[in-house]
Amino acid sequence: MALLVLKFGGTSVGDTTRIKNVANIVKKELDAGHQVAVVVSAMSGTTNQLVKWTQEISALPDAREYDAVVAAGEQITAGLTAVALQAIGIPSRSWLGWQVPIRTDGMHGRARIQEIDTEILKKTMLDGQVPVVAGFQGISPEGRITTVGRGGSDTAAVALAAALKADRCDIYTDVDGVYTCDPRIVTKARKLNKISFEEMLEMASLGAKVLQTRSVELAMKERVRLQVKSTFAEDVAGTFVVTEEEMSEADMLEQQVISGITYSRDEAKITLKAVEDKPGVSAKIFGPLAEQGINVDMIVQNISEEKNARTDMTFTVTRGDVDRAVKTLEDNRAAIGFAAVHVDKDVAKVSVVGLGMRSHVGVAQTMFRTLAEKNINIRVIATSEIKISVLIEEAYTELALRALHTAYGLDAA
Amino acid sequence: MALLVLKFGGTSVGDTTRIKNVANIVKKELDAGHQVAVVVSAMSGTTNQLVKWTQEISALPDAREYDAVVAAGEQITAGLTAVALQAIGIPSRSWLGWQVPIRTDGMHGRARIQEIDTEILKKTMLDGQVPVVAGFQGISPEGRITTVGRGGSDTAAVALAAALKADRCDIYTDVDGVYTCDPRIVTKARKLNKISFEEMLEMASLGAKVLQTRSVELAMKERVRLQVKSTFAEDVAGTFVVTEEEMSEADMLEQQVISGITYSRDEAKITLKAVEDKPGVSAKIFGPLAEQGINVDMIVQNISEEKNARTDMTFTVTRGDVDRAVKTLEDNRAAIGFAAVHVDKDVAKVSVVGLGMRSHVGVAQTMFRTLAEKNINIRVIATSEIKISVLIEEAYTELALRALHTAYGLDAA
Repeated sequence: MALLVLKFGGTSVGDTTRIKNVANIVKKELDAGHQVAVVVSAMSGTTNQLVKWTQEISALPDAREYDAVVAAGEQITAGLTAVALQAIGIPSRSWLGWQVPIRTDGMHGRARIQEIDTEILKKTMLDGQVPVVAGFQGISPEGRITTVGRGGSDTAAVALAAALKADRCDIYTDVDGVYTCDPRIVTKARKLNKISFEEMLEMASLGAKVLQTRSVELAMKERVRLQVKSTFAEDVAGTFVVTEEEMSEADMLEQQVISGITYSRDEAKITLKAVEDKPGVSAKIFGPLAEQGINVDMIVQNISEEKNARTDMTFTVTRGDVDRAVKTLEDNRAAIGFAAVHVDKDVAKVSVVGLGMRSHVGVAQTMFRTLAEKNINIRVIATSEIKISVLIEEAYTELALRALHTAYGLDAA
Repeated sequence: MALLVLKFGGTSVGDTTRIKNVANIVKKELDAGHQVAVVVSAMSGTTNQLVKWTQEISALPDAREYDAVVAAGEQITAGLTAVALQAIGIPSRSWLGWQVPIRTDGMHGRARIQEIDTEILKKTMLDGQVPVVAGFQGISPEGRITTVGRGGSDTAAVALAAALKADRCDIYTDVDGVYTCDPRIVTKARKLNKISFEEMLEMASLGAKVLQTRSVELAMKERVRLQVKSTFAEDVAGTFVVTEEEMSEADMLEQQVISGITYSRDEAKITLKAVEDKPGVSAKIFGPLAEQGINVDMIVQNISEEKNARTDMTFTVTRGDVDRAVKTLEDNRAAIGFAAVHVDKDVAKVSVVGLGMRSHVGVAQTMFRTLAEKNINIRVIATSEIKISVLIEEAYTELALRALHTAYGLDAA
């Protein structure tokens, strides 16, 4: 008997028929002898509707009120799912973030879970009741509703699985697993049976939308086994996300050097022209941006030859942050010292990810050569131990993905 | 400076433009020097949608889960309204039932408010913050979300006004006051400037939908002055609901014998044929119905002449209860003893209400004569000190209302 946390995303609970289907999936796991706790997202579309309403009223709504509004989405599905379970004879009840309680910090809109009190949940599960926890939400030290940010239901599910010491956390979604690349663009993309936490983490943070970065981070830290699988083909095994050690030798042998290729269009390139090239200038640029909560991703600094010369500084932020970033830079223009700010929003980031990179040479070379053959200009490059990212002109995204997928031998037979 | 509780119904907060309008109404009252607390319903349509979802999943959903689901509606508007107030420079925050807290009993779906802790609300109001309380909801002794039943936002507003010792509770809705009759049916209906609690209570319980019965009951008990007015014509005074003493002499002189005429189509007539006519039989019939929570309204028993003879017992219930009522009667057939159950759903209840009835004779006679002139057959009659109700064939409802409105001299000039 295993203890499973089953998490159902927005499309999995998209209407009442699908919510009934979720109840049947839970029943199968119970019939197989497992203990089950459920985490649900809002019905697909609901969160967007709620966000839209807040934005129609205010361009910059109070984050505390925003949280109270959007948390209603998961409250609704948690109640409906409990009703669906009861309707097929399974004792169940809904648990809202403040009821569990799921304690978070006070950073509304992107709160971090600090503690989950699992005592009551465990007791009710022993009594045969299936708890349905509203994902995405918690309670702040001040007793107000917090949300953990868009996509945070995955993170909430993993946090709950860790707190319950669950044997596995199954993330049910509208795709049947993690693919070597987005199958909507690369038709020859293959589903991966297993992937390591490290690779999944890079892929998630580099644009693969199947799992939220923070959920993978947390699963890796807490060693929560994850499975990503489809709600609409629940008998088909999905992709298991496991520790590197758990990737069996066979898996490693079979594995390509590159596990996956991801992309993100949510990128904007900012170039500061003629910045003073002296110690401390980076701090003057990126300090104020960090204070504004603006995440800077890729950074390139041209190295100048002369002393006290001026150079260009290029970096990327998400498109949603670009206006605030430029304003922040202009506000600090005197302190930083630069001639002009150039913004380019027509860029995309393409990344190749794979543990095999550590032991294979020429991975970067394959990428650069492949893109060059297609006349795709690389604007910025960033690398880590297991990934290489390049910033390219957005229009070339699909072309780049397909060419790289073939070049790394990932195409399905 | 007065302390006002402003309550906005579903159509008043029906979309984000209307929610912004609500914020402007609140601002006007603040600018006039008043202290304001706001209570909001769910956006019109939202509660129906949420109820529909629960019913799609289960014909008889767990009332605790039902409450968790539908309470989300008011949570959303409370947050949005607080955002709208902030957007025009008014400090505000939303308060959910469990946050205030509004303590209720554990009767989910139709909970009764037991205690409202107003300490924090009062403090925040003194600090210049407008609290926006989610109507309709509270927290049970077990810490679960309760709702006070459909239309219960009015009751929640009155309860809050009583707890805050507010000078007035303004119920903003989509009509501009209480009318002598439904203006959609009787075009000559007039708006009342004032009405007594007693009359309003009868009218509400007899079908006038402008205020929920329990809210009037509570306002009368707690002596909370009410005003019913339109959100869409907020500069026009509405109808004040006041104590009998507050109805000035002038009002009383001006007043017609009858203040209003109401109707309800939510009626069904049940007749038990050949019931034993002996002591205790009423208890055997109505005891089991009461145990099932079925409300019995009008009751008529034919008196038989002979000892141990059998008689017919006729009574009315709401249409929603009729199937359960018949089942309950059949289940208790042996104990009650009757020959057959007849059900008639094509009935409507028409009532005339007025304090003036106490001091005027012939009010009933006018009703019976007027209906007879139109060939409308009266099935059941029920009276109280200030109202007369008759059950008639539903098809005659409009005809009866218009004829009575004229007969009692209520038609607008």
